[in-house]
Amino acid sequence: MKLICTACSESYPSDLAVQRCSCGEPVELELIRASIEHGNVWERFGGFFPYLSKEHIRNFSLGEGNTPIVEIPSLSQQLDNQIFFKNETQNPTWSFKDRGTLTGVVRAVKLGFSRIGTVSTGNMAASVSAYGARAGLETTVLVRQDIPEEKIYPILIHGSRLIEVDAHFGEIYRKSLEIGERKGIYFINSDDPFRVEGYKTIGFEIADYFSFNPEIDYIVVPTGSGGLLRGIMKAFRELKASELIREIPEFIAVQAEGCSPIVSAFEKGLDEVGSIDNPETIAGAIADPSPPSGNEILRILKKGGRAIAVSDNEILEAQDMLAREGLFVQPASAASLAAVKKLREDGMRDKRIICILTGSGLKVPSAAEKIVKKREKLKIQKTSIDNLEKIL
Amino acid sequence: MKLICTACSESYPSDLAVQRCSCGEPVELELIRASIEHGNVWERFGGFFPYLSKEHIRNFSLGEGNTPIVEIPSLSQQLDNQIFFKNETQNPTWSFKDRGTLTGVVRAVKLGFSRIGTVSTGNMAASVSAYGARAGLETTVLVRQDIPEEKIYPILIHGSRLIEVDAHFGEIYRKSLEIGERKGIYFINSDDPFRVEGYKTIGFEIADYFSFNPEIDYIVVPTGSGGLLRGIMKAFRELKASELIREIPEFIAVQAEGCSPIVSAFEKGLDEVGSIDNPETIAGAIADPSPPSGNEILRILKKGGRAIAVSDNEILEAQDMLAREGLFVQPASAASLAAVKKLREDGMRDKRIICILTGSGLKVPSAAEKIVKKREKLKIQKTSIDNLEKIL
Repeated sequence: MKLICTACSESYPSDLAVQRCSCGEPVELELIRASIEHGNVWERFGGFFPYLSKEHIRNFSLGEGNTPIVEIPSLSQQLDNQIFFKNETQNPTWSFKDRGTLTGVVRAVKLGFSRIGTVSTGNMAASVSAYGARAGLETTVLVRQDIPEEKIYPILIHGSRLIEVDAHFGEIYRKSLEIGERKGIYFINSDDPFRVEGYKTIGFEIADYFSFNPEIDYIVVPTGSGGLLRGIMKAFRELKASELIREIPEFIAVQAEGCSPIVSAFEKGLDEVGSIDNPETIAGAIADPSPPSGNEILRILKKGGRAIAVSDNEILEAQDMLAREGLFVQPASAASLAAVKKLREDGMRDKRIICILTGSGLKVPSAAEKIVKKREKLKIQKTSIDNLEKIL
Repeated sequence: MKLICTACSESYPSDLAVQRCSCGEPVELELIRASIEHGNVWERFGGFFPYLSKEHIRNFSLGEGNTPIVEIPSLSQQLDNQIFFKNETQNPTWSFKDRGTLTGVVRAVKLGFSRIGTVSTGNMAASVSAYGARAGLETTVLVRQDIPEEKIYPILIHGSRLIEVDAHFGEIYRKSLEIGERKGIYFINSDDPFRVEGYKTIGFEIADYFSFNPEIDYIVVPTGSGGLLRGIMKAFRELKASELIREIPEFIAVQAEGCSPIVSAFEKGLDEVGSIDNPETIAGAIADPSPPSGNEILRILKKGGRAIAVSDNEILEAQDMLAREGLFVQPASAASLAAVKKLREDGMRDKRIICILTGSGLKVPSAAEKIVKKREKLKIQKTSIDNLEKIL
């Protein structure tokens, strides 16, 4: 098997620890053609993961994937489109990252690394820490110095080492790959080719749910680095190459207005994504100021698809809407519904849409508190037991 | 179909909103015999839920159940028993409660209620709030006045009403059922017969995972009210009555030393569970000082099984052990592993054991902080980007 550059098609043998092409663009594993078996997502679509054995799953999996797809009819009605939610909060560390962390860890182990790491603001740090612990690997997490305290303990609990680096996010990303090569640490960063491979399972599960005849118009993906969208897209490309589906759905990449380098480049018709100096948004999980797979996202979207930015207010409003239908997600996840709402105001009607809900609302307690306190009246009362009946 | 008292076998028509027998003991739905179909857990075991239609699932489900079972070989080896973990943290509100909340909400709707409620310290409050929002029902959550702030926002975010009642937990439980009857509020409390029905899915998934030949020695269940253990047990009883399995596994009910009324009664050989005045434990999710299904748990355990109490220190140590293998659970969940560890010290060897991990570690951030800070050295460092390579 080969690793192929997403931009210049240069290829590399897949037994080298190549994560980016010499041209600077991300590489990906060649397109895989396969058929479908029975079992959970790794078993059922095992043909699409020829580098993953049953033993790998038994030794390194924490039970990621196989998440539900839920339609909320009242939201579909309210927004004049049929909206399904792919709920990735139901993963072992409560975000989609786990799917790619599994394949990333297996990759690292197969290449002989005993040290792994990641550069992250939250979800990925917790995920890599958990899977590193599961695999018995020494795990290092690099974060920016402004990481909020609420995110620290779910990382440290797994016994990994946390280093706060005084630098821009993009700088830490690049430096980690360089140092990793010299020091023998496999950094499973946001768009590592094998991390991206794991995200294919989301696409497979979506296609499977709709019996391989999805007739989906759009998959709406909260987008930071670009790794998640790339993985879901690769799943559909492989399903089509295997003649299992006829059409590849279009993608909508959503970013927060306070950090939207991909949207800016898309709107200007550019081929390259720039970088943002001072990202500022409540949707920290998609605030990647210099997305390492940004150019590849532009290449994908140019063939069909779009990019859209939503404000923090729109994000919090969408998070509130989802919570009032029973889905408690983090701000980055709610960005997907915020985008649908915005596109509907621009006239989008009667589309069949999948929104990816990327991570749990429990991970950003401060956002939940903000939403509850913003409502007109706080629904808390105190009473004695004798007075309870009166106020009920 | 009938509701049958678990103690005196008195029966009631199931279209009445009976939640407890006139003798005071909990009722349960009669034993159901069925065969198995394809699909997710509700579809596959649909025959065991004759009161649940596809439309109910479509309208009220948030995608609960279908959680993974994971074996951690290093823990199995370390503790000389084969230990599997049923990870209930991967539910829509990140605890097992969701399974029973779905069936409870459907029950309430079928009986014509438009108001629901619950009495809870955390997991169940969040779950009932989410499913009440999903179903468009007015939802009231009764809690004790000492509820920690970290638990409030995941409840309020769904738009439910929170009432802090100045009374003992058991008193609020009893009073809620009385008032609910008069005021038309269906309280889906911890051992509501239809909540218990939902927990059957855990038993079905366990049996299914082992191809209906589980050969499990023990299922270890963190136990507060007793509803969870009852539900899993009923699944195995129904599978046996349907001739789908041959043996029903034994159960180990685990409580925290600071609130262990069931264990006390079991050890003394009593038929009735007493109540605890001042429950005090870090495992708040199983701290039920007067368990409403406690006597039924004693009846079940007397036929085979045991009850065991573990200290807060043992619980935190087990939570740490699990986190260092990649599983970040709340203290109540870790009680299951703490029990296995204790039984192993008493000589238990070579058993095949399922530990139920009831809820996510993200729900009790204070416990995670405590564990991390207890370790010899805090693994946090700060560095400039230039110095990064040196310290890695």
